[in-house]
Amino acid sequence: MPGSLRLGIDLGGTTAKLGIVDQDNRIIHRAAIPTADAFNQAVRDMADAAEGLARDAGVPSMINPKTGRMVFANNTGWENAPIREALKAHLGIPVLAANDADCALAGEAAAGAARGMRDVLMLTLGTGVGSALLIEQRLYTGGDGMGMEMGHLPLIAGGWPCTYGARGCLEAYVSATGLIRLTEETMAAHPDSAMHAHIQMEGGKVTGRTAFACAEQGDAAALSVVDTYCAWLAQGIGGLVSVCRPELVILGGGISRAGEPLFVRVRAMAEQFVFAHHLIGAPAIVPAQLGNDAGIVGAANLGQTLGQQSLY
Amino acid sequence: MPGSLRLGIDLGGTTAKLGIVDQDNRIIHRAAIPTADAFNQAVRDMADAAEGLARDAGVPSMINPKTGRMVFANNTGWENAPIREALKAHLGIPVLAANDADCALAGEAAAGAARGMRDVLMLTLGTGVGSALLIEQRLYTGGDGMGMEMGHLPLIAGGWPCTYGARGCLEAYVSATGLIRLTEETMAAHPDSAMHAHIQMEGGKVTGRTAFACAEQGDAAALSVVDTYCAWLAQGIGGLVSVCRPELVILGGGISRAGEPLFVRVRAMAEQFVFAHHLIGAPAIVPAQLGNDAGIVGAANLGQTLGQQSLY
Repeated sequence: MPGSLRLGIDLGGTTAKLGIVDQDNRIIHRAAIPTADAFNQAVRDMADAAEGLARDAGVPSMINPKTGRMVFANNTGWENAPIREALKAHLGIPVLAANDADCALAGEAAAGAARGMRDVLMLTLGTGVGSALLIEQRLYTGGDGMGMEMGHLPLIAGGWPCTYGARGCLEAYVSATGLIRLTEETMAAHPDSAMHAHIQMEGGKVTGRTAFACAEQGDAAALSVVDTYCAWLAQGIGGLVSVCRPELVILGGGISRAGEPLFVRVRAMAEQFVFAHHLIGAPAIVPAQLGNDAGIVGAANLGQTLGQQSLY
Repeated sequence: MPGSLRLGIDLGGTTAKLGIVDQDNRIIHRAAIPTADAFNQAVRDMADAAEGLARDAGVPSMINPKTGRMVFANNTGWENAPIREALKAHLGIPVLAANDADCALAGEAAAGAARGMRDVLMLTLGTGVGSALLIEQRLYTGGDGMGMEMGHLPLIAGGWPCTYGARGCLEAYVSATGLIRLTEETMAAHPDSAMHAHIQMEGGKVTGRTAFACAEQGDAAALSVVDTYCAWLAQGIGGLVSVCRPELVILGGGISRAGEPLFVRVRAMAEQFVFAHHLIGAPAIVPAQLGNDAGIVGAANLGQTLGQQSLY
């Protein structure tokens, strides 16, 4: 329904954000409600909030496109939750559902860094690593619609444990979780690092910002963390570019807010990992533009960007 | 041109194989000629041989789909060679060109293990690692048509050197080159291994078959090589399944001829590397069926399986 008002819902583990999006992809009305622990209650709450807002709706999570069920939502513990049918039953209107990284890229394609592009790769670097791929302006979600888990490609096979039992996944290294582990290990090996004093001022806990903040002050151990993290990310991106050959790579999620210190390093290092780059080049790597609104705007634009198989 | 006779050319570094393929994908006439060192001579030879055979043609190598040029053919040293236009000029008929792994999968889709399937992943395990992906029955070759180099995704970042300068690519480990390196390193550490006597009988050189042959005789060092190799391959496949969610994974190339000792191990180990496999399962992993004819049959079927962008 291009041109008309649409409702986007960004369903997170603690909060569901809703917004009405106009034809220019501006959010003209907003609401935010807590995500209830019980699936049925969460659906009722979202439907109530949505009824207060608009007509069409999209919801993000890990989705089986044939059934519209949330297969595996590790933040809430929901398995096989029938999100699409349940919302549709409450609202009586068409509902589309897609995973949060897919929504973020749908948003960037509609109103952000990927506007007008055909083939775009996006990674969201948060607690985990989300990924999304636009192929000829449609979101590719794998043969059965439950793929595009690029965070679970290997980076260092047999290495750090990943959330689902495997070892050495890209996500284990380039998520905030991986960056925090690398920061903590480096701090333990460098008791003289300025990172120790820094975290005391910040509540005592290492975060994904610790190393970037102290590297900017010239701390050698923090610089080594940032360089190592960016090298891991660059090799992951270079390999993915060798496979997908997108026009553009977008980085979103909390870690991407480190800004230029991150992007300068990743741009400098990624190209060497792109196969035949000396002959065919490599795409630009840019930050996401939509920030916290990406989920709402993206969900509201799923009708234009989801593949055929995901429409019902 | 489904139903009609087509000519397929499998252009290798030393030999070009040509065949006329009928409506049932049987090769009804064949020819094989040496690949000349000079590009122009090689084209003339292929055109002459083709004129002796048939109407439509397909040629495999690394291809820019917009220009029809062979971007990077490391076996022959040709760069940017205008294979499609040159053959078309000689033959005066439509010519399609695609990389050899794409042709192998096009062949399996037309007449082999992937018949009737929509979403299939194929890896060819030879001197290098080729890869191809069928998405909704079309070959996906990346945004600019020069992608699908899955062999250059990382497996152990920073590890063994790869052919183009990076370190730790999947290809560095799961190609025959990687298997031979692992075998040689293991033999050096195990002077008592039966592999030493074995290679004396086989001309003195370690090959991709050495460890599999001696593992079958119960040699412990050879068994450790086979187990390690299969674990690497399984993690690579598991990650790729998490991204592509194909119905089927096909393994081709020389190493796949190791047969059940390879497939039993890879099947047993790959599933643990498929994200959320306990909820959504994992596809079968099977050997390619077409063997040496895959290139000819696949090239002859590019008209049905190449994406829109690759047709001219």
